[in-house]
Order: sequence, then structure tokens, then C-alpha cells
Amino acid sequence: MTDQRQTPLAQSLPATVPFVAPERMEEIRGAAFEARLGANELSFGPSPKALAAMADSLGGIWKYGEPENRDLRQALAALHGIQPEEITVGEGIDGLLGVLVRLYVNPGDAVVTSAGSYPTFNYHVAGFGGVLHTVPYKNDREDPEALIAKAKEVGAKLVYLSNPNNPMGTVHSAKTVQTMIEAVPEGCLMVLDEAYTEFAPDETRPRLDTSDKRVIRFRTFSKAYGMAGARIGYGIAHREIATGFDKIRNHFGVNRVAQAGALAALKDQDYLTETLSKVAAGRARLAQIAQKAGLEPLPSAANFVTMDCGRDGDYARALVKALDKHGIFVRMPGVAPLDRCIRVSVGLPEEIEIFAERLPLALAELG
Amino acid sequence: MTDQRQTPLAQSLPATVPFVAPERMEEIRGAAFEARLGANELSFGPSPKALAAMADSLGGIWKYGEPENRDLRQALAALHGIQPEEITVGEGIDGLLGVLVRLYVNPGDAVVTSAGSYPTFNYHVAGFGGVLHTVPYKNDREDPEALIAKAKEVGAKLVYLSNPNNPMGTVHSAKTVQTMIEAVPEGCLMVLDEAYTEFAPDETRPRLDTSDKRVIRFRTFSKAYGMAGARIGYGIAHREIATGFDKIRNHFGVNRVAQAGALAALKDQDYLTETLSKVAAGRARLAQIAQKAGLEPLPSAANFVTMDCGRDGDYARALVKALDKHGIFVRMPGVAPLDRCIRVSVGLPEEIEIFAERLPLALAELG
Repeated sequence: MTDQRQTPLAQSLPATVPFVAPERMEEIRGAAFEARLGANELSFGPSPKALAAMADSLGGIWKYGEPENRDLRQALAALHGIQPEEITVGEGIDGLLGVLVRLYVNPGDAVVTSAGSYPTFNYHVAGFGGVLHTVPYKNDREDPEALIAKAKEVGAKLVYLSNPNNPMGTVHSAKTVQTMIEAVPEGCLMVLDEAYTEFAPDETRPRLDTSDKRVIRFRTFSKAYGMAGARIGYGIAHREIATGFDKIRNHFGVNRVAQAGALAALKDQDYLTETLSKVAAGRARLAQIAQKAGLEPLPSAANFVTMDCGRDGDYARALVKALDKHGIFVRMPGVAPLDRCIRVSVGLPEEIEIFAERLPLALAELG
Repeated sequence: MTDQRQTPLAQSLPATVPFVAPERMEEIRGAAFEARLGANELSFGPSPKALAAMADSLGGIWKYGEPENRDLRQALAALHGIQPEEITVGEGIDGLLGVLVRLYVNPGDAVVTSAGSYPTFNYHVAGFGGVLHTVPYKNDREDPEALIAKAKEVGAKLVYLSNPNNPMGTVHSAKTVQTMIEAVPEGCLMVLDEAYTEFAPDETRPRLDTSDKRVIRFRTFSKAYGMAGARIGYGIAHREIATGFDKIRNHFGVNRVAQAGALAALKDQDYLTETLSKVAAGRARLAQIAQKAGLEPLPSAANFVTMDCGRDGDYARALVKALDKHGIFVRMPGVAPLDRCIRVSVGLPEEIEIFAERLPLALAELG
């Protein structure tokens, strides 16, 4: 039953969850996973300096966090060569996407994304009554020209691109993305989700240009910095866009431990370099495992490898289920034709070897 | 400049912050406060068991938090003798109030609260385009009869009461609150903010009755449990109301450290008992200090003492400023006639003695 006092929009929304948590899956299967390779987390964890800073911060946990995130915004501004006013910090990109959609999308407004791209963005659009228009992927990559054409056609308020892309791991060049930014129609804002950008080559990142009001870019401490459980990410945009978040965000919403950890993680760029090389090695090994098992690994610029199983969505879903039985947590794209694939995160080397051992068993069971 | 692509509602909103942070005030004054008595934080900090659990949880900070907050909801359900489905967990009461207002308030809908009560609730109502109607306090207490009468008059979707009240520290009996709940008009939901309830006598808490759809109650780990920086709180309501939050909340929004800390804090009820007795002693000492300095302490059921300075808002504002110069951070109610008072949190005994020493100096300076 729905509470009839809710707004008509709220009443119309289903009580769906964007993702089923691995903890819930473990409860259903009655045992813990032996390899947690489904949520694109960084199993290596954050920098020891970030861990130490977070532990230190617990002594002050009785205090509210500083609501403007000033220290972190200053450090980020210095790292990126921009101004603190051009940065907004929030409870992960998920939280920031919610605030963004609320700022820009009225019920009935059009929003454009790719069919099968990040579900949490879609969840927020639906949650504010926006109307989602999708275009298909092209060769397993998001299609910037089609996205822009659709945005023009429907008069979109927002057009979303993730680069590298989740769930496929594919990436566009900086030049292609920059061309897309320059084609964003009047009245529309491009949402460039760069959650995985640290894993990708430099030449996939357009120059940060905060004088350009056509785009907002999102980054996070959940992926390359290994702090998914801390819930902290940031947006980079023209100050007129970035400061808009202050009108409605939950000002005291960012956890104090997360603030301390993010600041320390950012300062340990050596650890990040080490992480990136470990992830690259894990990616190569996953590709090798896929090939050996007869699956086709897609080229990946992220911390996961998406593997084409060469058949339909039912087959890939059955494989995900079979891997679950073998103690392995992976996920897969939700929409055809992407759902012919499974998506495997770079875990610890020992987890990857468990996957190497059991993937052939799971495939054999499917026949 | 406002981004013209924002929704008309977003464009109309000011970029205000509900509270200026003490860190910002310290930057302005050029030195740290010697006594942080303005944010109703628990200077004693959380249970050592909660601190240990939070430190332990850092090893898993690379994982997303469990999005259903199942362990915590089960523990809370056991503590309160209710069901987990009747509890929703979020990023502090501030975050939960935002979700609540979004669920229930359409632009133009009426909402009722007391003039001078919790500003962050008002911030969310304005942020979703609700129209706020206020009634005055009566003898420095919120006025349940007037709130209900106003809710009926304007057809309110929500009517807000904090018990104990912030910023006055006053409290109503369980019977008075229960009478208010029973008078909530059809179509309206009562928001009972119990952030400070652990500090108050048992007989100020109506029995938890989750079969009653007229009320949602909010509790937090920020106050009596000493974890303001962790950002975790919860709502208790009929399951139809509580599960509604799942439609739009940021499912992975609660920090993993906060989840672990809250669970451990809840299990250490002995520490809570100890905390309450320390706070009661601090409250008594603050009342004594006020009286000695010629101010009138209001009876308090919270972790702060509101002191009537006996003059107007300008005088109290000048006193807050003078205390700031003397290294003491306090806040005050923002609306007349409440703004004849200052509000002083129970800090550490040594902070309270700094206040005792400098209050007379600050008052003397004002003349």
C-alpha cells in the first residue's frame, strides 16, 4: 500500500532499488562470496595514509563535519588547477546526481542517456518526474552523436555520458568528448560522469575548462581512491553551476571521516600510481582468463572487464547465477544487446584466480 | 548569477546555508574557539565501543555500505519493540527530513511549524516549494493546539514538532504530545523530531505506536550517542510511511563507518546512561552560571541550556558576538521573541568553566 498523502509523483514511483547489494545476495545464498567482483570496488583499499587520517578523525566524530568541505575543495582546486568555487562536494556521485537532477529537471522535462548506462542516474530522473529518452550504444560504446541528436530532438535539460563507460568499460578520446561538449544544445547541460577516469589514459580526458557552462563533470573517491564506503565525490563545473548545489544540498551531509580520508588520499598520489598499475595488471589477467574460457573481453579503461559471452541475455544471466553458486559475485548489464556480457571487477589477485578456476566450471554447467 | 537552465523553483531559491559552521567563524575570528558550545554536539564523544567498531570498519571502507541498513534496523527494532520495516535509516535527521518533504510536499503545499523552530526543516520545505505557515511559541514552548489549529486551517501536508524543542530546550509531556498526534487532521502527517529525546525524562515520550499513520518520529546518533560527524539517524513510522523512503532515497548514501558505529553505540546502553548523567550535571552547572550572571536559564530537557538575557534580540546577538571574541562559540534562536535568549550546549566541564569565567566579562562589556 502507498501512503495517499504522498505527492502524486511519489505515489507513482515503485519502491525499486537501483542495485541488489552483495550482502543481500549472500543472505539468499546462505554463505559469503569467496570473490567479490561485482561492484567495481577497489579491493586493494585506500592509501594507508588515508586509512591513518580516517582513524585519526574518529577522535572528532562527535563534531559535525565542516559543511563547506573547504579543505578538500582547496586541495582539489590545487590538484586540478581550478578554483574551489568551481567544485561541489557531496555524498558520492550518486548523491550529487540526485541534487543535480533536482536542480535541473521539472516533472515532464526530457533527459537523454544511453540504453543500458548507469541505472542510478535513471533512478534519480524518474524520482523527480523527468522523462528519460535513450539512444542505443554503438559498438559497445556510448554514441555521442546520437546522444546530442536526441537531446536536440527532445529539448533535453540533461544529457548523460560516462567516460569510461559503466557497464562496458569502453572509453572515448578526449577529442570525441570535447566535440560532444561543443555540440550540447542551448538550454541543455551535459553530465560527464568520470567516476572511472583515473584508470583511463590521459588522452581520454578533455582539458578541464570551468569557463564552459555546457558541462558538469563528476569524480569520486569510491573507485581509484578505494573509499566506496566513505561516500564522497565531487562535481567540477562553472561556478554558476557548482554553487547552485548550495541552494538545496544537505549541507552537513558529508561524513567527517570521509572528509579526512579524501584529503589524505588525494595527497598520496604515489599510492594512486601504484593502484593504477595493479589494476592494469588485474585487467590484463581478467582478459586472459576470459579468452581462455572462450569469452571475448572488451577493451577496458576502467577497473573491471566486461566479457562478451557470445549469446543472449538469458545465457549471461544464467552464467551470473552459476558463478554465484560457485561463490563469485559479478554483475552484468541490464539491457540488450549489452546483456550478452558479464562485468567482472578487478579484485585481489587471489580472487581473480578463484574466478579463473571456476569460470570454466560454471560455463560447463550451462552447456 | 543563477543558471537559467535550472527549474523555476531552483532559480528562485537563495544560496543560503541553514547554519554558519564554527570552522568558518574560526576562520573569520582568526583563532580556534576555546569552548565549542554552539552546535549541541556531545563533547564527551561516543562510546569507546562505538569508536572501536568504527576503527575496525575502516578495513572494509573500500566496500559500499550495505544499502538496506539491515543490521542496524534489526537492532533498532529489537530495542524499540517494533519491526525493521517500520524504520528508515538515513544521513542524519537533516537528510531524512529532506527525503520526507520531497515525498509529501508539492510546490504550493502548506506545511506548519513554530516560528523560530528548527531551520533545516524550513530549508527543505522551501527547497521543495512548500509554503511554510508558522504559529508562535507559547511560554517558550511549541504550542501543540495552535499547530494543529493552523494545520487544519491551511490544510497542511506536514506539521512539525520537536520534543524536546530546539532551540529552547523545553519539552511537553507524553500525554500532550499524544493528544496532538490524535488531533492531526486527515491528509496531514505529523513530524515528531525527537533528536534530543534521550536527554529527556521517560514521561515525555509517547508510546511508540507504529500502527498509527498520523505521525513519523525521528531519532539520531548525532546527539546522545555523540556521533554528529558520522551522519546517521532514523525515522520510525507505520511501514507504509517508512518504506516510502525507499522510493527516492540515496540507497548507498550511509557511510559504512557510521553504520558500524551506530550499531555498536546502540549496544552500549551503559555508556548512554553515563552520558545522560554527565549531561544532567553539565545542564545544572550551566543553569547556575546563568543565574549568577543575571540571566534566566530555561528548564531544559536537552543537552543545552537556553538562557533568557532579559532584553531584545539585538542585545542577545551582541552577547553572542562578545562571547565569540572571548573564544566561546554559542548560538541563539533566530526569531523574536525567542531571540532574547542565547543557547549554550553542555560541553566538557573545562569548557563550561571557561564559559563561567568569561560570561560576566562579556556581559560587562555590553553594559
